[in-house]
Amino acid sequence: MRILLINPNTTASITEAVAARARSVAPSDVEFVPVTGRFGARYVASRAASALAAHAALDALAEHGASCDAIYLACFGDPGLLALKELAQVPVVGMAEAACLLACMLGRRFSIVTGGERWGPMLEEFVAGQGLAGRLASVRTVAPTGGEIARDPRAAIDMLAKECAACAREDGADVVVLGGAALCGLASQVAPAVPAPVLCSVEAGALAAIAAARLRVSKPVSGPLARTPPVETTGLAPLLAAAMSGAD
Amino acid sequence: MRILLINPNTTASITEAVAARARSVAPSDVEFVPVTGRFGARYVASRAASALAAHAALDALAEHGASCDAIYLACFGDPGLLALKELAQVPVVGMAEAACLLACMLGRRFSIVTGGERWGPMLEEFVAGQGLAGRLASVRTVAPTGGEIARDPRAAIDMLAKECAACAREDGADVVVLGGAALCGLASQVAPAVPAPVLCSVEAGALAAIAAARLRVSKPVSGPLARTPPVETTGLAPLLAAAMSGAD
Amino acid sequence: MRILLINPNTTASITEAVAARARSVAPSDVEFVPVTGRFGARYVASRAASALAAHAALDALAEHGASCDAIYLACFGDPGLLALKELAQVPVVGMAEAACLLACMLGRRFSIVTGGERWGPMLEEFVAGQGLAGRLASVRTVAPTGGEIARDPRAAIDMLAKECAACAREDGADVVVLGGAALCGLASQVAPAVPAPVLCSVEAGALAAIAAARLRVSKPVSGPLARTPPVETTGLAPLLAAAMSGAD
Amino acid sequence: MRILLINPNTTASITEAVAARARSVAPSDVEFVPVTGRFGARYVASRAASALAAHAALDALAEHGASCDAIYLACFGDPGLLALKELAQVPVVGMAEAACLLACMLGRRFSIVTGGERWGPMLEEFVAGQGLAGRLASVRTVAPTGGEIARDPRAAIDMLAKECAACAREDGADVVVLGGAALCGLASQVAPAVPAPVLCSVEAGALAAIAAARLRVSKPVSGPLARTPPVETTGLAPLLAAAMSGAD
Amino acid sequence: MRILLINPNTTASITEAVAARARSVAPSDVEFVPVTGRFGARYVASRAASALAAHAALDALAEHGASCDAIYLACFGDPGLLALKELAQVPVVGMAEAACLLACMLGRRFSIVTGGERWGPMLEEFVAGQGLAGRLASVRTVAPTGGEIARDPRAAIDMLAKECAACAREDGADVVVLGGAALCGLASQVAPAVPAPVLCSVEAGALAAIAAARLRVSKPVSGPLARTPPVETTGLAPLLAAAMSGAD
Amino acid sequence: MRILLINPNTTASITEAVAARARSVAPSDVEFVPVTGRFGARYVASRAASALAAHAALDALAEHGASCDAIYLACFGDPGLLALKELAQVPVVGMAEAACLLACMLGRRFSIVTGGERWGPMLEEFVAGQGLAGRLASVRTVAPTGGEIARDPRAAIDMLAKECAACAREDGADVVVLGGAALCGLASQVAPAVPAPVLCSVEAGALAAIAAARLRVSKPVSGPLARTPPVETTGLAPLLAAAMSGAD
Repeated sequence: MRILLINPNTTASITEAVAARARSVAPSDVEFVPVTGRFGARYVASRAASALAAHAALDALAEHGASCDAIYLACFGDPGLLALKELAQVPVVGMAEAACLLACMLGRRFSIVTGGERWGPMLEEFVAGQGLAGRLASVRTVAPTGGEIARDPRAAIDMLAKECAACAREDGADVVVLGGAALCGLASQVAPAVPAPVLCSVEAGALAAIAAARLRVSKPVSGPLARTPPVETTGLAPLLAAAMSGAD
Repeated sequence: MRILLINPNTTASITEAVAARARSVAPSDVEFVPVTGRFGARYVASRAASALAAHAALDALAEHGASCDAIYLACFGDPGLLALKELAQVPVVGMAEAACLLACMLGRRFSIVTGGERWGPMLEEFVAGQGLAGRLASVRTVAPTGGEIARDPRAAIDMLAKECAACAREDGADVVVLGGAALCGLASQVAPAVPAPVLCSVEAGALAAIAAARLRVSKPVSGPLARTPPVETTGLAPLLAAAMSGAD
Repeated sequence: MRILLINPNTTASITEAVAARARSVAPSDVEFVPVTGRFGARYVASRAASALAAHAALDALAEHGASCDAIYLACFGDPGLLALKELAQVPVVGMAEAACLLACMLGRRFSIVTGGERWGPMLEEFVAGQGLAGRLASVRTVAPTGGEIARDPRAAIDMLAKECAACAREDGADVVVLGGAALCGLASQVAPAVPAPVLCSVEAGALAAIAAARLRVSKPVSGPLARTPPVETTGLAPLLAAAMSGAD
Repeated sequence: MRILLINPNTTASITEAVAARARSVAPSDVEFVPVTGRFGARYVASRAASALAAHAALDALAEHGASCDAIYLACFGDPGLLALKELAQVPVVGMAEAACLLACMLGRRFSIVTGGERWGPMLEEFVAGQGLAGRLASVRTVAPTGGEIARDPRAAIDMLAKECAACAREDGADVVVLGGAALCGLASQVAPAVPAPVLCSVEAGALAAIAAARLRVSKPVSGPLARTPPVETTGLAPLLAAAMSGAD
Repeated sequence: MRILLINPNTTASITEAVAARARSVAPSDVEFVPVTGRFGARYVASRAASALAAHAALDALAEHGASCDAIYLACFGDPGLLALKELAQVPVVGMAEAACLLACMLGRRFSIVTGGERWGPMLEEFVAGQGLAGRLASVRTVAPTGGEIARDPRAAIDMLAKECAACAREDGADVVVLGGAALCGLASQVAPAVPAPVLCSVEAGALAAIAAARLRVSKPVSGPLARTPPVETTGLAPLLAAAMSGAD
Repeated sequence: MRILLINPNTTASITEAVAARARSVAPSDVEFVPVTGRFGARYVASRAASALAAHAALDALAEHGASCDAIYLACFGDPGLLALKELAQVPVVGMAEAACLLACMLGRRFSIVTGGERWGPMLEEFVAGQGLAGRLASVRTVAPTGGEIARDPRAAIDMLAKECAACAREDGADVVVLGGAALCGLASQVAPAVPAPVLCSVEAGALAAIAAARLRVSKPVSGPLARTPPVETTGLAPLLAAAMSGAD
């Protein structure tokens, strides 16, 4: 089983860390194929950066999406998620999408903690767009972005643990998602200080992508996530232009 | 990894069929331990039967829940789900809960098809209670209950396929959940007639229970799903009374 | 007019107190027939206890429901309410249901105060299930459960009054429901300290059950609250088994 | 117990019919005091007529509201309901408000059938404003307004029965409210043709007003339904001006 | 282009101030024709006053509505808005309606600040009735009513600025509406102290009424905002009676 | 007053038509400066094309956004709207956003008719994201995309008129938005066949952008739509990279 892992944050070291974490929870018959976005923000932490990352993720899918059983969009906030689901021939699972849905199985209400203040309203909108606003206890952010946390994780542990604990104690969260590609590996470090289960979004996304691949469901042949008729474009990378025109 | 599979439908042959299906999608390190409810309806297809099944599921948990890594409540509609999550020391995953959440990863809107007309409003309320009403395209039922379908599945295939196809064509479903313990194995048989992915609820529940177990999250120590203080009871089976009193 | 009053808390002294209170607001042509659950928690204050109480309430209905004009499910939180409405031949009114609906006539937004911390999220879900989340200002609980309050009501008065007042002053409640079978009689004692009307849930339920009986509406012959086809069961009390099989 | 019954439809014969119906379900210790609006539409069946009726109802309250235990606003659609609740010293119960809330006790989802097409969207907005949109199955109207139906009820029975039956059969209503002051007495005549309970809004409002009076709750001393500081006005009837200025 | 500006607050000096402000943002081809309500509260700041203002606004429309291209209902809270839309032959724009909708273009979430405590819940209901509850960050009020602020605006500036700033800093508002006919001209004075755009409701309403007039859309010929069949009335001013009867 | 009109459909003839229409409703002191996206789909009619258009719109803003008083994002569906609002120093108004909000002033419920079937669910999500789902009567699409309609508008008039009429007659719309850059000029042609006002989205967006510019509100200095700290990027056009890094 082969799963394309797209990191549209344009920082290769984060891609490697995420892939390593994904492999750590995968059985031996699952191969993760990591790829980093070719353009855009070093780390996505704003609406504009997220819009650019959607393009970069589509570009990566067009370049590397052949012969996969599933796509793992490994950027918490899931830029371009529905566009990827439309264009891809196999299931696409977003990191935030998967973490939110698995969190719903582990508690009545979940919170999200991540790095970068702009993610607060962006993730509230994301969860609402998923139809899960009623399950969300809170989103809490720390000031450093994921990119900054990845460069110095030790400095962030206490900040993150404090917010995770506040989600459980003040916001009524039964479970807390520690979200963000750059935060992978930190959940187990903050968990001891938190009186609620703490979910690593990278692991959640990997497990969900494996499950989606194992279900071996078909691509819809009609409806909003089916492939579109060929779309004529201009100015795109050749393989993305080809995919848009239905020639992939 | 050991997962207790509770079927609160009091029909042992359905328990066996569900367990076989669960094992078919599980890796070799996962053991499913099936148990059938000791009292209640032969097949749950009404509100009263569902209320009784909640008691039977708690009773089964108290009798057989020791030494498990997760609980799989294998009755679509998930009677007693939150009470089980409160009482159990490990994650509890309901069949309908899991199928709905996985369906959300495979499409924007999902439908449910099952047997027994009373399940229509009951499942709409279940989905609303999950906070997922905005993702639900429709619930469609066929007249025979799951129990009746299990006794003569061939007669039901066409009926079920027709409703599944209507979910995709008329109700706007991107993915259809074929729900019900007794319907396990039928998803692949109806799929060819349905222009949308068809999800087997028994498989979805099994895969989700495995994922929940693999995440190895802790039991909440506070909040609404933590264990309660000891509850004094009367007239219950000894092991359930012991569990309620905190002596398990 | 004869109204069956079912208390599925298995404490007979609470049944007696509730019946006395119900009689105090009833005209002389109304008879309340009280019955106590045969098994389950001494006082319902958890999800597991509530699930068991639903079975006990159905059992009580099957044993004593003949020749009644209405059923009053006299346990705040209304365990098994919809199952009872399905099985009974006459209107069934739940104590929390009735208190919430009458509160809506007395104010734009209402709060609930009751004993036992676990009731907080359970009642929020109950109110949401009633479709009344938009009218709910807050649910506040005090630590002692209703059972503990019934054993020493004087100690609880101040705690309850303080929370009721906070509902009005901090949460924006126009009216406060003092909820719980065991709290009957306390509303008038806390009212002087509360700058909003305080509603006794036991009285509200009794008055609503009387109104439901007086309307003399028919049992639905179709739809989700009509009687079901006979349900084959195992392991139940004979009269409940008979009722499930349609032989009552 | 004295209940002021305000009919802001300016047709005295409807006031008399409504009062007679209210008295028919009231115990002997309850007195209904009927009053008809002094200006406005003969029968309220539009947004403009409803706005005028709110003024007329306030005017009637100021003229006749002294020494009452409750106010029954006996016009389905409840023009001016919240303004009356603000101004009155005793509980105010609206006919539609009461019918919707009692209907919620008799079924999961209710429909409304009334006369006058404009009431369709107006009542959908009313129910949404009550926070009860989730319980509403449908609103169906027949072309003749209540005023026209009152003049020739026999001609309307079949039309009303057909819509009530459609609510149950097509819209999923468990209970149907036959709404409108002018339709009082017709519920029992349409019921035989309807496979669901049919609720007479006039009776429902009367029973609810009685219950509200019996609860003997206090007028809020603060909050949105408390009396306001004196309001200086111009051009109003003297008693209404006095009430607005706090001099009643 | 001629726009009727109806102020149903019965204080002529406020009408003049509002008209002057409207003219200040209008191009030279737009004429505002101001009119003051003939009866009701000097300044609308309660539910009862608002109900009376709806009648007064309809009365003003009937008296002065001929030969206009649009109606500007210049009272924040928009008493009688839908009744006016039903009765008028040209577009009717309410001050609060317009301010809320324009605020939605300037930010994701907006707050409202106004004078008079009773407007708090009234405006929350208004916004919910507009279907915009999801965009509302908060409503904050200062104790003096608009009428009192108009008499001594300098004393109110600091109070208003403090609440506007709190909307941005504490409630998450991206934009703040300073609402109220009597507050016109104050937005620019409070803006320097507020870290978010501050919108003057009087200007917003004027600009929206101009846009509505420029679109030159037709009056609906069917549906809920079309003219009704003639309505027979009693006790109204002659021109309003004529309008209700379709004779305008 | 200078308004940048960004058309991220990469078809220059559509940009010209939209600009001409915008100018036709603008007073003489308003200048529209049109610009066409440099890459992406010829006409946006899918999720993938919309994701690419967001990047192209940001790119156009960075290239041409200096010295404007407002930005008009002239592509119905508003790709990148919030990212543009974040990055721009002046108000940004989306065509669909503006049309929906103005439609809310002209009727209680609005419908949208546009070209391209994929826009159906995409626009439903857009409207829900605007918090306006409660005001939406329906979205109806015709098979040809806007791009195809622009090439042969005469062939589309009847199809569009039929759907617009169905919105009013079957879906309960009080007003219909004819949406799409490519459909500009067609509203007046379909209006005669539609029993409800028909709104041209191009005009609505232009009028709203003018109003937003006239309000002269400040850019937020904090909160989710304020400028972000500098974002380090790779692989972008120089002016967009500069804008992301705060150097514009």
